[in-house]
Amino acid sequence: MRKSIAIDMDQVLANFYKKLCKTVNENFGTNYTDEEFIAGTRRDLPEEQTKKLYEYMNEPDFFRDLEILDADAIDVVQKLQENYDIFIATAAMEVPGSFNAKYDWLQRYFPFINKQNIVFCGTKSVIHTDYLIDDSPYQLEVFKGTGILYSMPYNQSTEGFIRMNNWKEIEVYFQEQLVK
Amino acid sequence: MRKSIAIDMDQVLANFYKKLCKTVNENFGTNYTDEEFIAGTRRDLPEEQTKKLYEYMNEPDFFRDLEILDADAIDVVQKLQENYDIFIATAAMEVPGSFNAKYDWLQRYFPFINKQNIVFCGTKSVIHTDYLIDDSPYQLEVFKGTGILYSMPYNQSTEGFIRMNNWKEIEVYFQEQLVK
Repeated sequence: MRKSIAIDMDQVLANFYKKLCKTVNENFGTNYTDEEFIAGTRRDLPEEQTKKLYEYMNEPDFFRDLEILDADAIDVVQKLQENYDIFIATAAMEVPGSFNAKYDWLQRYFPFINKQNIVFCGTKSVIHTDYLIDDSPYQLEVFKGTGILYSMPYNQSTEGFIRMNNWKEIEVYFQEQLVK
Repeated sequence: MRKSIAIDMDQVLANFYKKLCKTVNENFGTNYTDEEFIAGTRRDLPEEQTKKLYEYMNEPDFFRDLEILDADAIDVVQKLQENYDIFIATAAMEVPGSFNAKYDWLQRYFPFINKQNIVFCGTKSVIHTDYLIDDSPYQLEVFKGTGILYSMPYNQSTEGFIRMNNWKEIEVYFQEQLVK
């Protein structure tokens, strides 16, 4: 029986925080590096800046030009699709302005993924797949299948999930599952 | 343990085919009644008209002014929310132009539904809830929980699911489940 894998977008496929860091620096006169922004700064922004950032994120093109987080992701997802049902599951409901840019981004980088397998949701407790690859400990906790934590500076203290550092590791892991 | 219910939008909450029939009549010089359109005509349109209809449906406002299918739906969904986790699960991926209008329509008629519980998907095989209320036999077949068929002229021959004719019936059914 083919197993199914749901894959998160931001900070698993797309480099969301790189764009967010650039947006902060350009608009708030700061000079954060991507590394310091992702590791902590993003949580410590003044409330007013966070509110303003949601406005930027809600602009129809914000999510359109995100970079691929790991260039291997495209090849690996395409290979995994030979043996697994691949779904994309992205939390988009708090940023409705992002719907079309996220959809177009997937068509651009992952055109081989069946459109019927794209899911824009809120909580991932509603996702019915065997695996979920996500950077968010919260989403993995509410998910009912096997959680794969995509390692990020802000989730280093999280335990209880299989941790993956890049898409090559993910490829190896899921190849091993096939022969188990 | 609270059970969860996923609810489809088109032809369960929103009167999609009424708008589609009106669109056909206005653009193709026909004079179909809603009843004959929904019962059969919609499937027999010339390919060129069907193609054109997808263009209309993809316009950003097409889904914005759909009528409520059954006025009781609003009250019943609100009441069900006291005892069930309510999700909205709508197949939207083939009509990406509909995302924002569908989202705004839900905010207008069902503002009490948690945004985190809204799902835009393709196939509903990916939906993890106890129940799914849907007019589509195909979606109910791939869904893994208990399927509730919202009765429509085009699904009269479908068997194997609990059939509901309106939202008052749905209210009674789910009240009964609570005391079982």
